[in-house]
Amino acid sequence: MSANIFAQLPADQRRSEVDATDVILTGDRPTGSLHLGHYAGSLRSRLALQGRCEQTLLIADLQALTDSSGRAGHVAQQVTEVALDYLAIGIDPAQTTIAVQSQLGALAELTVLYLNLVTVARLERNPTVKAEVELRGFERDIPAGFLCYPVSQAADITGFRATVVPVGDDQVPMIEQTNEIVRRVNRLANASILPECRALLSTTPRLPGVDGRKASKSLGNAIPLTATSDEIRAFVRAMYTDPGHVRVSDPGRVHGNVVFAYLDAFDPDFTTVVELKEQYRAGGLGDIALKQRLGEVLETLIAPIRTRRAELERDREYVMDVIRAGNERAKSITEAVLRDIRGAFALFA
Amino acid sequence: MSANIFAQLPADQRRSEVDATDVILTGDRPTGSLHLGHYAGSLRSRLALQGRCEQTLLIADLQALTDSSGRAGHVAQQVTEVALDYLAIGIDPAQTTIAVQSQLGALAELTVLYLNLVTVARLERNPTVKAEVELRGFERDIPAGFLCYPVSQAADITGFRATVVPVGDDQVPMIEQTNEIVRRVNRLANASILPECRALLSTTPRLPGVDGRKASKSLGNAIPLTATSDEIRAFVRAMYTDPGHVRVSDPGRVHGNVVFAYLDAFDPDFTTVVELKEQYRAGGLGDIALKQRLGEVLETLIAPIRTRRAELERDREYVMDVIRAGNERAKSITEAVLRDIRGAFALFA
Repeated sequence: MSANIFAQLPADQRRSEVDATDVILTGDRPTGSLHLGHYAGSLRSRLALQGRCEQTLLIADLQALTDSSGRAGHVAQQVTEVALDYLAIGIDPAQTTIAVQSQLGALAELTVLYLNLVTVARLERNPTVKAEVELRGFERDIPAGFLCYPVSQAADITGFRATVVPVGDDQVPMIEQTNEIVRRVNRLANASILPECRALLSTTPRLPGVDGRKASKSLGNAIPLTATSDEIRAFVRAMYTDPGHVRVSDPGRVHGNVVFAYLDAFDPDFTTVVELKEQYRAGGLGDIALKQRLGEVLETLIAPIRTRRAELERDREYVMDVIRAGNERAKSITEAVLRDIRGAFALFA
Repeated sequence: MSANIFAQLPADQRRSEVDATDVILTGDRPTGSLHLGHYAGSLRSRLALQGRCEQTLLIADLQALTDSSGRAGHVAQQVTEVALDYLAIGIDPAQTTIAVQSQLGALAELTVLYLNLVTVARLERNPTVKAEVELRGFERDIPAGFLCYPVSQAADITGFRATVVPVGDDQVPMIEQTNEIVRRVNRLANASILPECRALLSTTPRLPGVDGRKASKSLGNAIPLTATSDEIRAFVRAMYTDPGHVRVSDPGRVHGNVVFAYLDAFDPDFTTVVELKEQYRAGGLGDIALKQRLGEVLETLIAPIRTRRAELERDREYVMDVIRAGNERAKSITEAVLRDIRGAFALFA
């Protein structure tokens, strides 16, 4: 089983923005199973980039602790689930390193060192931190780990000497914060020991949930990467289309129509999708026929992932071996960086 | 050469507050050579406690970075100097572990984990942090590492499962902060995996500089542990006594008299010092005779330290071996604690 099943997918535009000397760091907080929204938003790009340059997927379990220190056991269990999802979609551990943040002590050491290079005021001004603080209603009760999270992220990025970090718009301030730290370290070292990194902005619009709201596991409106054929059909049947489109002959709206959002994201036949949109707008294309097509597209996409995941679930020892090997590789990379940074700080060696 | 030369010193009262099952963590920021003020205030107690229970001296080079990240090279060099001072005064590496904070990655990992258990507001309320922020004029430009310094100290203390931490009055809030973290970890683990610690308050008044002001290396008013006989004589000659005590027959003031402060601290013959004070107050005891006595007391104290330090300076490889062995010992202790804490957070193992 290889990543070839994804060859049918549209080549990601972003591939052209990355060259062979780049180092990509990306990953996920292990807070739940991944779904089609993740697939469209990030997983697919990782597959497209796989083998084109060095790529590490960091399962950020320590970052998952910063907003749920009470649910630690849940986080640990989800680490394996996320690794399973990676392997199931076609991430090849021979080409992409899968590693677990909390297993890499060097990242904690980098965090502690970098904390000296950033002021509290600067962290409080970080727009991503500000937005999240507001979102979570923390106010003055922000956990210190949460305020320091941009520093921990800078440790992750620089720990792998990453040059490219795929992010959403809202995370761009994090990249700026990291590059501030990079410049301070390089000034301290009086040499360019760390590369600056750049954001690789997602060009894919966020995939909505089947009801048209933001996709979220807790709302039950996101299609899991492990959905059965029946579940796929049920999700598609429930999809929000255009309430004004009653008869097949009625003209229908494409914008805000979840079925078209999914076809845009997953149907490999772009030309046909464009034609279907025209037909739908003009009238004469029914939701049932449209949903039939989407159901087949999703089944084609998900079936091999589902099969592969079932295989992997029966061979957990293999999954653990992959994680362990990834951690070892990541350890040697991050520890080499730490040695350089300790040198920059002129620490006792 | 052994610690026996200190047997002449008054037994420290504090010895009675510590028992054989206690674990002491103490140490210094490597910001300069140690002087007689350190000897009276802390080094002597460490000698008195040596062998009575487990004791670790942590050279806190990372904490020295939090207020002087620009002077990193200086800090590294001072690590060895502090270790030399320890050995020169009679710290026995077979009985007391000497370790370097930045060499113990587990302490950074504990710091990063504990950051999730403390709010920013709580750190800002910490009286020691508040006082230091004011003292250094940081205001909103506090380095994040400085705000998080109580958490790092909690990592140090718990990383050795310390039960006793010798501190000054001003550091008591740090101990409280540590015990808050201990209780949160134990609640998380649903077991008592970390001991609470208690402050061992210094009973010795702070030793003044020779001019009566606060002793400080930068003011040049502190007597180094390596002072030559000539330097000792010069320092004692310059000591502030009682400006109203002009003729030998004049009555003199003992309070605020630096010579008596030093005799109180270092003259092993308490009874004679009490008599000398009475004689001085009544009139009939000259400063020259008094300083003569103090000069001899200090020479007796410092001479063996000076000799031992000169020997050690010729054998730096031995000093490095001591530090390396101490680090190895400290590593195995702190890594075992980290494993327990990772368990409490139910991290991926």
